[in-house]
Amino acid sequence: MTSEFQIQGITAAELAAQYGTPLYVYDGDSLRGQFTTLRELLHPDLEMFFSLKANPNVSVCALLASAGARAEVSSLVELRTALLAGVRPGDIIFLGPGKSEQEIAACLDEGIYALVCESFGELVLIDAAARERGMIAPVLLRVNPAFAVKGSGLTMGGKPRQFGIDEERLFAETDLVKTYPAVRLVGVHAYLGTRILDEQVVVENARRIFALAERLATHLDFPLEAVDIGGGLGVAYFAGERDLDPAVLAQLLNPVVADFLSRHGGTRLLLELGRYLTAPAGTYVVRVRYVKESMGEWFAVADGGTNHHMAAVGIGSFVKRNFPMRLLNRDGDGTGPWHVTGPLCTPNDTLGKAVELPELRVGDLVGVLRSGAYGPSASPVLFLSHGHPAEVLVDGGRSHLVRRRDTADDLLRQQIRY
Amino acid sequence: MTSEFQIQGITAAELAAQYGTPLYVYDGDSLRGQFTTLRELLHPDLEMFFSLKANPNVSVCALLASAGARAEVSSLVELRTALLAGVRPGDIIFLGPGKSEQEIAACLDEGIYALVCESFGELVLIDAAARERGMIAPVLLRVNPAFAVKGSGLTMGGKPRQFGIDEERLFAETDLVKTYPAVRLVGVHAYLGTRILDEQVVVENARRIFALAERLATHLDFPLEAVDIGGGLGVAYFAGERDLDPAVLAQLLNPVVADFLSRHGGTRLLLELGRYLTAPAGTYVVRVRYVKESMGEWFAVADGGTNHHMAAVGIGSFVKRNFPMRLLNRDGDGTGPWHVTGPLCTPNDTLGKAVELPELRVGDLVGVLRSGAYGPSASPVLFLSHGHPAEVLVDGGRSHLVRRRDTADDLLRQQIRY
Repeated sequence: MTSEFQIQGITAAELAAQYGTPLYVYDGDSLRGQFTTLRELLHPDLEMFFSLKANPNVSVCALLASAGARAEVSSLVELRTALLAGVRPGDIIFLGPGKSEQEIAACLDEGIYALVCESFGELVLIDAAARERGMIAPVLLRVNPAFAVKGSGLTMGGKPRQFGIDEERLFAETDLVKTYPAVRLVGVHAYLGTRILDEQVVVENARRIFALAERLATHLDFPLEAVDIGGGLGVAYFAGERDLDPAVLAQLLNPVVADFLSRHGGTRLLLELGRYLTAPAGTYVVRVRYVKESMGEWFAVADGGTNHHMAAVGIGSFVKRNFPMRLLNRDGDGTGPWHVTGPLCTPNDTLGKAVELPELRVGDLVGVLRSGAYGPSASPVLFLSHGHPAEVLVDGGRSHLVRRRDTADDLLRQQIRY
Repeated sequence: MTSEFQIQGITAAELAAQYGTPLYVYDGDSLRGQFTTLRELLHPDLEMFFSLKANPNVSVCALLASAGARAEVSSLVELRTALLAGVRPGDIIFLGPGKSEQEIAACLDEGIYALVCESFGELVLIDAAARERGMIAPVLLRVNPAFAVKGSGLTMGGKPRQFGIDEERLFAETDLVKTYPAVRLVGVHAYLGTRILDEQVVVENARRIFALAERLATHLDFPLEAVDIGGGLGVAYFAGERDLDPAVLAQLLNPVVADFLSRHGGTRLLLELGRYLTAPAGTYVVRVRYVKESMGEWFAVADGGTNHHMAAVGIGSFVKRNFPMRLLNRDGDGTGPWHVTGPLCTPNDTLGKAVELPELRVGDLVGVLRSGAYGPSASPVLFLSHGHPAEVLVDGGRSHLVRRRDTADDLLRQQIRY
């Protein structure tokens, strides 16, 4: 038996009445709690950078920034968003394999902490842009390691990739520091995987990246001002998964950090966190428009679907696994199985397949939980021209509209009848 | 050896210089040709409806409408787009399993030809909305057939689905016409599959839908004013596929149509076409920003990727198959294999994997061909806040901007810092 869903005393029904559906709701207490719990446990010198790609909402970023998060961005607009959210330029890094010259220029003009450089070609562009400005560009070298650490949803090391520079290539360089006089190598970045749910894997990643950074800085002969150990910390979505335990993680990771710092006092240490910080805080709220039976199976057709929540189609798996889902607007016992589908004209528009839910009725509100990361921004929100849903942040016991729902005029504004 | 790519005498380099990249370009001659070739071959009483879900651009729709296309829409904004494009309300049908009351009302207020009703629940809403307006609502009943016809990319019949009403349920009804006095049943709709590349499958679908419509109209006792035989006509994307031959299709389909009409003179016959009409006309144009080697493999990192072209990740298959791709801005022989990737921070952001292409250089333009359907509107255009690309239609030997590129201000406009 579940009770009516609420966030800080505000029910889903109240939120839906005020803001309409479909709707993304974020719980500010969850966002802040997820950040501060880890912050308080982790070694204080390990700085936590929020990866805006997980959730680019300016208010989500502002809340995390106010709790102490720095920002990792990957586009001009993400950079602007982080600055609007109040993150200091000195606490921003810019990452991505395909940076434009305009993006590189903006990083230098804003004075961000470092560009994470992903190729020799990019080093040329950064060097040229810095010389044009009579400045020195701070650069973290992203390494594509020769090794991989297993145990993540998407392993990034040890394979040919568009990201970073192969470890072997960097160790074949001798004069990198002199070749790009307007570039200051400040450190090393590596990213080894996503959706990691094993504390040991995070620690092993960190250990190997620290070692790689030390070897590379020695080889290329630059002072190691910073090491970015990537991130990839996951959250449990599916049956059989469990969340990372922040206490266990800290207990295992902190000695590795302390050991590294014993040799490199003053080196800035960066940890990137996207999904881990925002996923648990978000709920995708849809309203059931139709309830129907087809060939003995029950469908609830809702007003929103995978056009706003593409991850629900299937994440890191070819087999459909359901995100946690629940009826939001009233009590009820599971009597499922229910297929919860959206308004699109494809059978793939299925938020949940054969989910155990109470008997659904027209007008019911159904929530897809743990949906605060890679939600609408990672979904085809323009499909069938339905547009972006509203986003609401509940904080301090009050709800705040943090992104307006797209209107018909918004959706037609950019089109031109020739 | 390929020569420089051009559309109606305008080169890709000229288009990129004028409109920037990444860019979707549509060839008006191709759009018109794809429509009129089939139009001239098909039985004249088979009306061709353009499914806007394949490409919701108002100018694409207008061009097809001027060639004689009607419109099949699935949202309020698609309805508005079709009207803006000049499609007469009497030539529009509205389809979709999750219609809102607002959408149903708009269909009635605009006087479209028919609503394609997908459930008993929707019949109740349509009837109520029509009574409120003192009018009679024209409705096509969408049937989920008990049978399936094999040979399509995604088979729709014979399975539990959110679409339509099960055939068996409809044949169990006796008083459907009387139950909803403000509804006029005008006919039957069925949609049996997508990406069909076998003319025989299209014909077999039509034959079975005609028979189903006749049986159902007889059983429910309403005059068969219209039959919508769905669509799902595909185009060849991948190695080993071949395009439908419109002459063969017409030769096989026309007698089936004529046979049906010999018993049902005056019945309106509808064929829905989305991908078939627009896919061949579209090219997604990206510019190479970086060229790099990783562990012996070559990558071209471009300024656009799967954020604008999600279908390139993999369509109807768990194995990555490449869309046709080519170097656009100069001659060159294939020397591949090249991985063409985008600006996102995921290895899945791969437009083409190990594609045979000439040696790519920074600044080169690469095109993903046959990309005029399910392009940006079916992609996560907001991912990493890169936004929607520009869209250009070349017609009459001139290029026309038909959708503006999203600017940073566009992307931030809807967000609110609380």
